[in-house]
This record gives sequence, C-alpha cells and structure tokens, in this order.
Amino acid sequence: MLVVLKPQTPEATVADVGARLRMAGLAVHRTEHDGRVRFAAVGDLGAIDPKQVESWSGVESVAKLSKPFKLASRAFHPHDTVISVGRIAIGGPQIAVMAGPCSVEGEEQMFTIAKAVAEAGATVLRGGAFKPRTSPYAFQGLGEEGLKLMRRAADAYGLAVVSEVMEPDMVPLLARYSDILQIGARNMQNYALLRVVGHTEKPILLKRGLSSTIEEWLLSAEHIMARGNRQVMLCERGIRTFETYTRNTLDLNAVPVVKELSHLPVIVDPSHGVGIRNKVAPMARASIAAGADGVIVEVHHDPDRVLSDGAQSLYPEQFAEMVKQIRTIAEVVGRTV
Amino acid sequence: MLVVLKPQTPEATVADVGARLRMAGLAVHRTEHDGRVRFAAVGDLGAIDPKQVESWSGVESVAKLSKPFKLASRAFHPHDTVISVGRIAIGGPQIAVMAGPCSVEGEEQMFTIAKAVAEAGATVLRGGAFKPRTSPYAFQGLGEEGLKLMRRAADAYGLAVVSEVMEPDMVPLLARYSDILQIGARNMQNYALLRVVGHTEKPILLKRGLSSTIEEWLLSAEHIMARGNRQVMLCERGIRTFETYTRNTLDLNAVPVVKELSHLPVIVDPSHGVGIRNKVAPMARASIAAGADGVIVEVHHDPDRVLSDGAQSLYPEQFAEMVKQIRTIAEVVGRTV
Amino acid sequence: MLVVLKPQTPEATVADVGARLRMAGLAVHRTEHDGRVRFAAVGDLGAIDPKQVESWSGVESVAKLSKPFKLASRAFHPHDTVISVGRIAIGGPQIAVMAGPCSVEGEEQMFTIAKAVAEAGATVLRGGAFKPRTSPYAFQGLGEEGLKLMRRAADAYGLAVVSEVMEPDMVPLLARYSDILQIGARNMQNYALLRVVGHTEKPILLKRGLSSTIEEWLLSAEHIMARGNRQVMLCERGIRTFETYTRNTLDLNAVPVVKELSHLPVIVDPSHGVGIRNKVAPMARASIAAGADGVIVEVHHDPDRVLSDGAQSLYPEQFAEMVKQIRTIAEVVGRTV
Amino acid sequence: MLVVLKPQTPEATVADVGARLRMAGLAVHRTEHDGRVRFAAVGDLGAIDPKQVESWSGVESVAKLSKPFKLASRAFHPHDTVISVGRIAIGGPQIAVMAGPCSVEGEEQMFTIAKAVAEAGATVLRGGAFKPRTSPYAFQGLGEEGLKLMRRAADAYGLAVVSEVMEPDMVPLLARYSDILQIGARNMQNYALLRVVGHTEKPILLKRGLSSTIEEWLLSAEHIMARGNRQVMLCERGIRTFETYTRNTLDLNAVPVVKELSHLPVIVDPSHGVGIRNKVAPMARASIAAGADGVIVEVHHDPDRVLSDGAQSLYPEQFAEMVKQIRTIAEVVGRTV
Repeated sequence: MLVVLKPQTPEATVADVGARLRMAGLAVHRTEHDGRVRFAAVGDLGAIDPKQVESWSGVESVAKLSKPFKLASRAFHPHDTVISVGRIAIGGPQIAVMAGPCSVEGEEQMFTIAKAVAEAGATVLRGGAFKPRTSPYAFQGLGEEGLKLMRRAADAYGLAVVSEVMEPDMVPLLARYSDILQIGARNMQNYALLRVVGHTEKPILLKRGLSSTIEEWLLSAEHIMARGNRQVMLCERGIRTFETYTRNTLDLNAVPVVKELSHLPVIVDPSHGVGIRNKVAPMARASIAAGADGVIVEVHHDPDRVLSDGAQSLYPEQFAEMVKQIRTIAEVVGRTV
Repeated sequence: MLVVLKPQTPEATVADVGARLRMAGLAVHRTEHDGRVRFAAVGDLGAIDPKQVESWSGVESVAKLSKPFKLASRAFHPHDTVISVGRIAIGGPQIAVMAGPCSVEGEEQMFTIAKAVAEAGATVLRGGAFKPRTSPYAFQGLGEEGLKLMRRAADAYGLAVVSEVMEPDMVPLLARYSDILQIGARNMQNYALLRVVGHTEKPILLKRGLSSTIEEWLLSAEHIMARGNRQVMLCERGIRTFETYTRNTLDLNAVPVVKELSHLPVIVDPSHGVGIRNKVAPMARASIAAGADGVIVEVHHDPDRVLSDGAQSLYPEQFAEMVKQIRTIAEVVGRTV
Repeated sequence: MLVVLKPQTPEATVADVGARLRMAGLAVHRTEHDGRVRFAAVGDLGAIDPKQVESWSGVESVAKLSKPFKLASRAFHPHDTVISVGRIAIGGPQIAVMAGPCSVEGEEQMFTIAKAVAEAGATVLRGGAFKPRTSPYAFQGLGEEGLKLMRRAADAYGLAVVSEVMEPDMVPLLARYSDILQIGARNMQNYALLRVVGHTEKPILLKRGLSSTIEEWLLSAEHIMARGNRQVMLCERGIRTFETYTRNTLDLNAVPVVKELSHLPVIVDPSHGVGIRNKVAPMARASIAAGADGVIVEVHHDPDRVLSDGAQSLYPEQFAEMVKQIRTIAEVVGRTV
Repeated sequence: MLVVLKPQTPEATVADVGARLRMAGLAVHRTEHDGRVRFAAVGDLGAIDPKQVESWSGVESVAKLSKPFKLASRAFHPHDTVISVGRIAIGGPQIAVMAGPCSVEGEEQMFTIAKAVAEAGATVLRGGAFKPRTSPYAFQGLGEEGLKLMRRAADAYGLAVVSEVMEPDMVPLLARYSDILQIGARNMQNYALLRVVGHTEKPILLKRGLSSTIEEWLLSAEHIMARGNRQVMLCERGIRTFETYTRNTLDLNAVPVVKELSHLPVIVDPSHGVGIRNKVAPMARASIAAGADGVIVEVHHDPDRVLSDGAQSLYPEQFAEMVKQIRTIAEVVGRTV
C-alpha cells in the first residue's frame, strides 16, 4: 500500500501515520518526493482498510502498489536514487566508470592497472579476490590478501573499490576492504546472502542472473531493500539465450525498461555480456546511449597471461579510447563522465 | 576456396584462372580489393588440388574459406559493401534512416507520415502492403493498392521505398513498386523465396529470424548472394528469449559481431525488437553507438487507431527528436545522418 | 463464434443457419459431436449479434471461441481427429510408427530400409527428396527421382509415404508421390505454402518451428484448416534453448498440452529433437508414455556413410528393438502399435 | 588423471600409489570397478608425468579425465551409484517415488498426505519448511516446527524425508530432521552451500538450475563430491525457455544424457517442470520411460487452499493412479516401483 501525505504535514502527524500502519502489522518504509512524505506499507494488508487510511489526518491518497516490488519501484520513490561512493555519485548526472582485472593476481598487477584506469577516467576499481568457479578445481582467488592489495592500489590512485562477496559469512571481511559489495549473477537469488548484505550500510552492485527476468531481478533488489539497505545498483551482464557466438546476450533493452520501473541506478557490464575483447567498446558506447548510469569493464595490461577471462579484458589503451568515446556519447544524453 | 591473384595480373590471365576453376565444376565469384582480384570458388572441392592452383600463372595465394558463408564473409570481400538506394548509399559513412507505418492504411495516412519522416531526416519509407499474420483471421494488408499509395507518397517526398515480399510469386509485383525488398523474420529460411530474390537486382533487407543464430542469418544471405544478388542488408530485429517484458530481445551484440564477420550493411529495427514506444529511441541511439549502418522504425501520426503494432509506433515528433539524437551519436562514431 | 445446434435439427434448418452465418460475411465451418451440429463462424463478428443468433430456429447455444485458433481447438471439435493414411488410422487407438532415412539416396538404400522398417512394425516410410539446407552449398536431395524411388520402395512393402514439400509450386509434384505432405520446421510460418497445402486433400504433417510457441504452432495449423484441409497432424521435433548438449530440446510437455487444446494428432520426432543415436529410443518411449499418437524416426542401414544426419539414425535392429519397447508402453496407456 | 590399478594389487601397493599421488599435491579419490581400484587424481597435474605413473608398481593404465567433472563421470566410476535412504535404494532397480506437499502447513495436513502417499507406493515424503521465495513478502515456511511435523508424519508411515536447505548455517538443523538434503534450483551454484553439504554424510538431491547446462549441473555435483560426499542425486525440474504455456520446459532429454555421462541417480520433478496438474502424470510416465531413477511430485488433499503451488499439486487419488501407471512402465524398462 502506498500512502501519500499532504504537503507540509507536521512531523508529529507523519509519525502518527507511520505508527498506525506499523500497529496494523505492516512493515513501513518512508521516502519523500515533491514535498510529500510517502509510506510504502508491506505485509498482510487484510487487516487494514485503505478507505479508512484515507480518512486519517494528513493523508492525501492511498494506492495499491501493484508491482510485486515496492521499495524498488518508481511509484514509491519517483526520484532517481543517487548513491555516493568515494568521490562519485552513482545515478546522478555523472556516468560511473568501473574498471579493473577479473581477478586480483598480485601487487604489481593491481598497481599497474589501477594507475592506468584512474588516468583514463575510471573512478571505481574492480577485481575479484574470491572467485565463483563453475569447476571446483579452478583458481579460487587470492582471498583476503587480494583484498588488501586491491584496497592499497585503489587508495594510491583515488579510486573506490568494488568486489564480489559470495557467502553470508564473508560479508564483514569484504565490507572491511570494499566500498561496494558485488552480488554475482549466480547468487542473485541466494536469499541468505541478500538478507545479510541488506543489513549492511554498503552500496550493493546486484548482477542480474543469467536467466532472470527483469521482475525477478527487481525482486532480488527488494529482498535487500526490505532489510533496510536502500543503496542498490542493478548490473546488467548478459542473459543466456540460444546464440552462442557471444558468451552471453547483453540485454540492453533492460536499461530503459528498468529505468522506467525503478529509481535504482543501472550499470552495464559489457565484458561478461559479450565476452569478446573487440566487442566491449561498442557495447559500452551502446549502454550509455541506451541510458545506463555506468559501465563496469575488465582491463588488464597483460591479458594473455591472466588466470581467468583474459580474452575479454581490454588493454589499458583500448580502455582509455573507450572512455573517450563514452564521454562524448554521455553528452548527447545529457550526462558527463 | 579463396584464390587471390597478384596485383596487376593482366585481365586475360584473370579470365583464365576463373575459367579453370569453373571447369573444375565450381561456382566462381569475383571481387577486387587492394588492387588484387579475388575468386571465391565454391562447390565440391574434391576435384581440385589447392597446391596445383597455387602454381597457376597470376595466382598469389590460395586459402580455405573456413566460414560456412563465403560471399558474405569479409575474407572474400574485405571492403564494406555500399548499396545505393535512391539518393542514399547504405553501408557508407551516412547512417540510413528508414521510417513509416507498420501497414499501409490509406492515402492520407501515407502522405502525412511520409511528409513527417522526410522532414525529420528519413530517406527510406517503410510500410507493409502484404502482412504476414500469425492468425489466418487477422488483417492481411491492402495489397497492390497499398503499394501504389506508398510509392506515390514516397515520390512526393523524395524517399525510397522498402516493403516486405512474402512469397516467390509476388516478387515481380513488389519489385515494381519497392526499391528494397524486405524478407521478414518468419521467411529468413524460406529458401524458395531467397532463391527468387537472389535472381533480382533489387537490394534486399534480410531480417534475422526470431531464433536464428548469427551464422544461420549469414547463411541465408549467402543463399541470396549465391544466385547473383550481392546487395543484401542484414536487419537485426530482436530474438526470442525467456524475457517477456519486452516483445523480443533486441540483440545489439550482433551488430559488432556481424560487422566483423561480414562486409554487408547492418540495419537495426528497434520497433519490433523492443515493442514498447518509449524504449524505441534509446535502443535506436544504442544501435548507432554499437556501429549499425542504419535503423528502421515505425512511425504513425495516430498510433492508437492503427490496425497492427500501434503500441510500438513513434509519434512524428518523437521520431524527429530521435533522429536528432542519433545524428549526434553518429558523429561520435565518425558517421553522419 | 461457436454455434451449437439442438440434437435432431432437420438438415434444412441446419443448412439455413449455415447460410445465414455466411450471409453475415463469415467463413463457416461445420462439424458434428454428440449428435449435435456445430458451426465455427470466423471473420469480422461486428456485423452479427450473438443474442440474435441464439434466437434462430434450431440453435441451442452460441459461444465465443476464445482461443485464437478455432478449427484446431477442442471447443469446436471435441472428438479426436483420426486421419486415414494407407492402411492405418492416425490419431486413433493405434500408434503410428513412421521411419526411414533422412534423405533418399538410391534404390538399394530405399528398398533395404523400407523392408527393414516394415518388418519391424512401421506403417509409414519417411525420406527427403528435396532437402532444406542452411547452406546453399550443401546436398539438396535427389528430387523427383528420389520421390519415385521412395514410392516404389513403400509400395513394395505396403507402407505409406511422408515427404517434405518446401515451396508452393512443388505441392502438386509431392502430392503425386507422397501420401502425407510434411511442412518442415523452417516453413511453419511460410503462409503461402500453408495456403497451398490447405487447398489439397492430402494429410499434412506440420512440424513445430524451432522457436515457435504452442499457440503459434496451432495457428499455423489453423492457416491450413481455414483453407479447407482438416487433416493436419502436429509434429513436435525439438525447440531451440540454451542447452547445446543435445541438438535441440525435445519438448515433450507439448504433447499433453496440445492433446488438451486440440483434437489433432500429435507425432513426435525424437531423431531431430535429440540428434544423438542412443538417445532416440528412450525419447521415443517417453513420447508414447506422454500420450503422443505416433513417432517418426530416422533409420539407416549404413548411417556412417549417409549424406545428412547420419549420427542420429538408428540401425534397423535398434529400430526393431525400439518398436518392441513402445509396443509395451502403448499398452500401458491403452493404445496399440 | 585416472589411474587404474591391476586386478589383485595388494592393498599395500594400492596405498602406496595413493600416497605418491597425494605427495604430488593432488586430491585423490578412490573407487573400485571390475576388481580394479581406480584413483581420480585432480589438481595441478603439471608436477607429475603420466608416463612415470604408468611405470609404478601395480598400475595398469593412466588416462586423462577429459570431462571437466571427474568424480561424477562414468569414466571414474563406471557402475551406477546406488544411494540407500530409509528402506529404499535409489539408483538401483527400484524406482524412487517421492511425494508430498509443496510446503508443510500443519499436523493434520502432513499426516493426511503422508498416509495417502505411503499407501499409494511412495517411499520418500517431500515438503518445504523453509521456502525460497522470489518476493520478500511471500510466505517463508513454518521453519523448524514444520520439520518436526514432517519427521513425525514420515515416521508414522515408514517414509524417508527430503526437504530443502537454503543456506550453509541451516545445514545442521535440516540434517537433524531430513534424510535427504535438497539443494534448490536457485542455489545450484551457491558454492558455499555446496561446500557445506559436501562435508555432511547425508544424501543430496541437487536440482538443476533453471538455465543451467547439463555440464554446469554435473560440475555442481562435483563441487559436493570433491568435499567427500559421494551421495548425490540429480533432479531435473524444468529449464527456462521461450515457451510460456507450461511453467518451465521439463527437459527429459537430460535423462538419457546424464545417465550416460554420469553414474549418479537421476530424479525428475514433473510438478515444477510443467506446473499444470493434469500434465504431471503424463510427464511422470515419460520420465520413467526415458530412464529416470525416480520422480518427485507434489500431492495435496486440498490443493485449492494451499499457500504455494496448489495448481500443480495432484490429488491423492490422481497420485495413486499415477503410481500404478509408472509401475507398469517401470517393468517395460526392467525396473520396479
């Protein structure tokens, strides 16, 4: 149920409305827009009559939240959500450029790449310290050692850090080193993990599952937001289709669709979406042209010798060229890089 | 087999090489690039020894054409194919903008829309006179009457015409009125139809089948080209996936992939690809940013009352705004509109 | 609109109701069930008031045909359609077993295989004389010569013949030699072809398109039936999914679904559906267990040397074993082979 | 690396071979077949020369395990794995029939259903106490209270229990009440969870992810087996395709494919695979005909009032009829129920 209050309702009345909704057994979430407080009240609505709520002091209107996702919907929160990370604000006019290697491999690697991407215009450093691997016998990442290296490299060049957390117990460790917690595609419906990161105050980068519908993706964001953490970024990274020429099928249609349904920032990962180095820049350009709030790309100075996903990593000079291109496209859609 | 001749091979020697390949029972196709004649020789290669061909006078090198498509591949024809239609050249520096209603409905409709799209910057008028309909009971189009109307409207505003041909017997009729023959997605593997249009001299707009791989799509182009007609444009219009929020999933990954594999122009149809009016412009922008040679979009001045696909048609003023946006993006990728 | 007449309505009154519906501009199709005549009246229903039709003499009830397919629906035709071909009746208690090579290759081949499959229990001989090939350079079939060979081999062993027709102009040729006309998956929405076979009196085996929904498939059957030919069999042959281990994903769910929606017989093609020899028999067994009216399988005595699809052809002795297995399973579901 | 020892190799020599492989830094798994011990040695094989291993005392042959899954492959373990649960052995001649409600709702419900399914021939009781829900606002299950109820109901009727575990921390709780731990489709690649259940001694029912390839599914089994737990059953429950008539597309092709690639038992879940009550029995029959080792189906005595998935639950009498049918089909393929 979406309860919109009248403009200038005194705070005491606002608090009263919230309290009454809670007393009816509902979970109550508050936001403001156009000078009006809005409450999303979710739970078993059987116990409360919307007609009656409409008669409460201060209440302007009561509506059903018809989408299955509530807190993630534009109906509840009409304004774009802007998430501050380090020196940038994601979801605002500035396009977020996140870049780095697939896996953290060592000190020299991280500093070399961090320097290169920072100089080219990136503001967030990506890199995996714990890798989800389809095979139990594949390289699983450097672990905490990798996180430390990445943190130091990021700090040296003024970058924020995004890294993947794969299980509930590791959230505190990741939160110590990383500014943004990434939930990988395989874990998009790992509800235990969503619940735990929902209790943190860290921005979340929620990757879309390989075969998840847009609605399921927004419902996973809702799982996080329902626990209190409203700082969720959605990351499109390709869906599984019959086409096998590209690794996955990057679904750019999802960008304008999600921007309409939700107020959350949308980031695109063309590296995993396409999986072929010389297709990454065209798809990054297309992402920004379609309205994305940012891109996250893999960059490596020596991609032929990396332990995972080298074939899709850009060389630093290709990345610099790509940033130049998206900078111009950003202007066309009224944004900056 | 790809036979590359030495630069400045005298024409008599060139003709001799061609004749010998034909005498070995092969179909022989000729192109030129960088001052060298190239022959693609296709058929049963068992009867001829590449080593021997290499020893022929004038021959510089002999290679296997490893892709299953030959004439459509960049190996055979490294330069971009440019197709002249009316006053524009498709596949060259200028982006092709094709626009018009889903179906031809009447004179006033066609003239109103033709005027609007021409003024906004379109150079090709689209419109269906014969409609492929999933249900046998749905509106099937105005037929020849519709073609005449569309031709007159296009001529009045200096536009070329593209319209769909659905069966072999109707190719001559369509060819009389339309500058470009469109093969619809459902007919992408209708080999009888591909054969007949392959014998015409009309440019072809070959839509990708709903569940066709990129390779199958290029092989359908090959079916046309093997009959003699080299003027094929490929049109991405969305593939069928599990996602149902959008009508189809426009596969923009296909744009850079096809541009690398083939020399043929690639056009994108965001109207059918997404199927939702306010998502058409973002995806048109993304198409050009990804490297497409043009877009084809549905435009209608009164979309709420059309007989098919109104919900995805742009209003003329939305179309004009869209053209303005892709004009700027075209500049970023070194093109014009 | 579905118009059900009262039992024992005199034929003159029945004819009168039919005539009135036709005069309202509708196409009228008649069937009988439980002693009641039923008319499916399709077309622009705006000109006629169902209330008024209900008041006509002899009319028991008038209902909307809510499915987009009418003639193919169980609402119009509650009884299973049974199609007589040669000495068997398809869609009745007896399971149809169709078998033969992918392509007709020669006399000895056809007679060897026809003898083997007839002895094992097949009643219909399959074989392609004209092959739809993704590549224009692949073997295209023996043509009419192949049809003649197949006809003679079938006659020698008391089998009916099913063979694919690929284009409208070839329908008369195929109809001369083949008892059942097969429409291939690529042509499921080739409406010109559906129209022409709809005007014949030959039973049709309509394969499901690789990415066609069940509804689209039934609508293609409707295209044929709306022209007059009611003898349509539906053939499930695998859909395209992300899974690449099997050639396609045989969708056996479609069997009970179609049997509920429609009265038409459903045949399953496990050879193309799976594409791996030793998986054909298990899936043929599963097809019958799921309620299919028959199977069509590829059989070859020398599959390693065939020109197409050898890897999925059963050896004659494997086929004989498979027939034995489905015979027992048929009994479980109250059928015979 | 697969190391096969000679028959009658003395245990001391066997132990010696194992120790040497471990000293080379490899993880070593042992099995026996045809009187020969086999070692699968996995890890970084760079440090050891297969030629040398072949020369060791007792070694008959050394081969590369070419599939990415090792312990799950038939090459390592040629015999079918048989898993004992309660009074039945899964993977042996007897078909496993698992049945019960989607969710545990209360005492009367569980006892009513347990009695009904036991009398009809089920040997395992299914039921969810913790439900993974796409929406954070949906019913999440009765929790431990539900597990207790289910255990008591199962014990009362001599059934084993299977129930889903959704997160690592809950494995001990589930293991206390449930004989088989189910890993749901959404968690198929939740590696933290796979690791923890891999350390238990409970049989695991590993559901296939909605968009997982067969290879990824077997690799998830490998994640469990690599931790020591070899008792893994694979459960096909439908994949996500473009077809929306059925809830998912039950992929029965996977049954013969997995039975060839792996020695693990394969169970089919037609209830989730199809999602429509009257299609469950046909698909259960088809599953057994295709070679599955068992089925798991939803049964409820009052499905119209259940809190989740009622539309796909069988009534007890439908279930009894279904068991009768699969009993006869089991005989056809040499099995019993």
